[in-house]
Amino acid sequence: MNARVYNFSPGPAVLPEVVLAELQRDLMCLPGVGASILEISHRSRAFENILHQAETNLRQLLGIPEDYTILFLQGGSRLQFSMVPMNLAGCKGRAATNHGAANYIISGSWGKYAYKEAVKECETAIAWDGAKTKYDRLPAAAEFALHPAAAYVHYTSNETIEGVQFPTEPVVGEVPLVCDASSDFLSRPVDIPKYGMIYACAQKNAGPSGVTVVILRKELLERSADSLPGYMNYKTHAENDSLWNTPPTFAIYVVSLITKWLITDIGGLAKMKAQNESKAKQLYDVIDVSQGFYTGHAQAACRSMMNVVFRLPSDELTSKFTSEAAKQALTELKGHRSVGGIRASIYNAMPVEGVEQLRDFMLEFQKSNAK
Amino acid sequence: MNARVYNFSPGPAVLPEVVLAELQRDLMCLPGVGASILEISHRSRAFENILHQAETNLRQLLGIPEDYTILFLQGGSRLQFSMVPMNLAGCKGRAATNHGAANYIISGSWGKYAYKEAVKECETAIAWDGAKTKYDRLPAAAEFALHPAAAYVHYTSNETIEGVQFPTEPVVGEVPLVCDASSDFLSRPVDIPKYGMIYACAQKNAGPSGVTVVILRKELLERSADSLPGYMNYKTHAENDSLWNTPPTFAIYVVSLITKWLITDIGGLAKMKAQNESKAKQLYDVIDVSQGFYTGHAQAACRSMMNVVFRLPSDELTSKFTSEAAKQALTELKGHRSVGGIRASIYNAMPVEGVEQLRDFMLEFQKSNAK
Repeated sequence: MNARVYNFSPGPAVLPEVVLAELQRDLMCLPGVGASILEISHRSRAFENILHQAETNLRQLLGIPEDYTILFLQGGSRLQFSMVPMNLAGCKGRAATNHGAANYIISGSWGKYAYKEAVKECETAIAWDGAKTKYDRLPAAAEFALHPAAAYVHYTSNETIEGVQFPTEPVVGEVPLVCDASSDFLSRPVDIPKYGMIYACAQKNAGPSGVTVVILRKELLERSADSLPGYMNYKTHAENDSLWNTPPTFAIYVVSLITKWLITDIGGLAKMKAQNESKAKQLYDVIDVSQGFYTGHAQAACRSMMNVVFRLPSDELTSKFTSEAAKQALTELKGHRSVGGIRASIYNAMPVEGVEQLRDFMLEFQKSNAK
Repeated sequence: MNARVYNFSPGPAVLPEVVLAELQRDLMCLPGVGASILEISHRSRAFENILHQAETNLRQLLGIPEDYTILFLQGGSRLQFSMVPMNLAGCKGRAATNHGAANYIISGSWGKYAYKEAVKECETAIAWDGAKTKYDRLPAAAEFALHPAAAYVHYTSNETIEGVQFPTEPVVGEVPLVCDASSDFLSRPVDIPKYGMIYACAQKNAGPSGVTVVILRKELLERSADSLPGYMNYKTHAENDSLWNTPPTFAIYVVSLITKWLITDIGGLAKMKAQNESKAKQLYDVIDVSQGFYTGHAQAACRSMMNVVFRLPSDELTSKFTSEAAKQALTELKGHRSVGGIRASIYNAMPVEGVEQLRDFMLEFQKSNAK
């Protein structure tokens, strides 16, 4: 099996074929450089150009103003779960100002993980928690219990496990809004000035695993205490243009190519959003007309455009679904172990044809297996 | 310039051409998988095999016993500079047992950086510091001032900036020995049971930037407090086989290929060491017979086999040296800004032919430029 499949993995996930082709072509020798991207110093002119290009592309795609810094870090969202409170809320046992409790909106598994790490680092408060209905819905504005002098409000724009996505940002007034956008970053336009900080590990829409993009309003850098562990300090990274330590050079190179693809091949994030919505609609439509054969997890108003999560009538049919799909080169459809069922992750780079094939397979599977 | 050069970069650095060729061949589609290594889930069977292979190869090459765990982490040595004291010495302001002061042997710039981070996290003591002679030598055993109940002793086996390398481990008795082996990892055999922990970022001898290998005696995991930030906790990573969060999958894949190359193409670390010594000798011999035209930084007994650091009679000649070398496709020879002069990094993957060309260039350059 050396033909490419349609890979519905939740991440690391499918990448654009044209990007893979460019990576492959230049892997042995970056044009004009005489060495592989894997071999060049992070302080070389060639890599500085790549880093600059990745940043420029991100600024263009997302309309990031100059009063925001862009950092390329390691450690994934998990490290951000600790870095965010340590930097922005002041850290227990360190000589930092306390900036008020960190407030968390918990709309799924990842929000809960983020909250758990914050509890270790600073005063916290839960602004909203969707656990009661198994994270199938989002809060209305009136449901928030925001701490009046909160250090920040943290939320997860898309929950990969439950398939729940905020259609727009929660309204939080003057409190800095911090968003874990790991799984819908670059899938649609966002209004950066609404945010204190957005962060995203790259392995869904922006690149391979191993690099995390942080977009941070510069005035918030003043909160980072010198007593923080060096790598955990946003200010240190910002002052050194992400070169305080050796960054994940190859992963940043892939980000530069993917953002170029979004600009030139796709035509920007508004077009990407339209394509993503149209892809997701094809699958949700099948669920909606299935008369209960397929049942979606999330309520309709907050369905994810990235992760389509649904169940079949039995575990037996679920197994049959994934194994028959795999025979048609539709792979990685098994839901997360904590939720079960099926999860079709259809990030930016999942071709429309892949979604159409899955849609047709779902229709066919229902016809053959519904009582 | 699309021909490959001889790249003497201190890291990220030259990789074996056969490894690059395999990476390139399979980049679009990993054989039997139907997707790129960049696209597959870290929980897929295919990636689990890669992770397992990387670990198995490391155990074979270094003779790592079963009572040591191997972790693949992000954040480079810099994050280890904080993680080591936070885990092994007990962390200020957290509910951890204090295991005694952390002792540091400082033999160069990187040792100093490591020490600076430890000071933020725990009680520390300097066991030895070579600053007085600008880090050109190493301590004799009698020079150590070891704290009697030290949590651990940390040292840097090779200092890339000063070109100083420990020929063998310092003798520290019962105190756990912790080694930053970032720049000579896999360049020679080491006797693992002598160590409490060895860590190395990959971008010198073991892979691209973005992954750090940690080899840790399992009994030391008991020191990791639950209150540590999740990503900073060795125990968490060990209990989850480096899959607690999404690891840098591609970088680990490269490590698996490079360790395979060391086993099958090179024939193991004893042979790698012999080749490295022979390469380094060619350059040091030129320095030694140059009658002062080239002056090495490190004293002869502790010269690095990885980074050959030397000076020319003037800054003018240094610039001329690097620019004329570049014309002969010998690149990245400029010394670190803090030391100046020339640094030729000749890691495992630098071909013998590259070193021979540099040697010939040095001889020729002296002939043309010595007064």
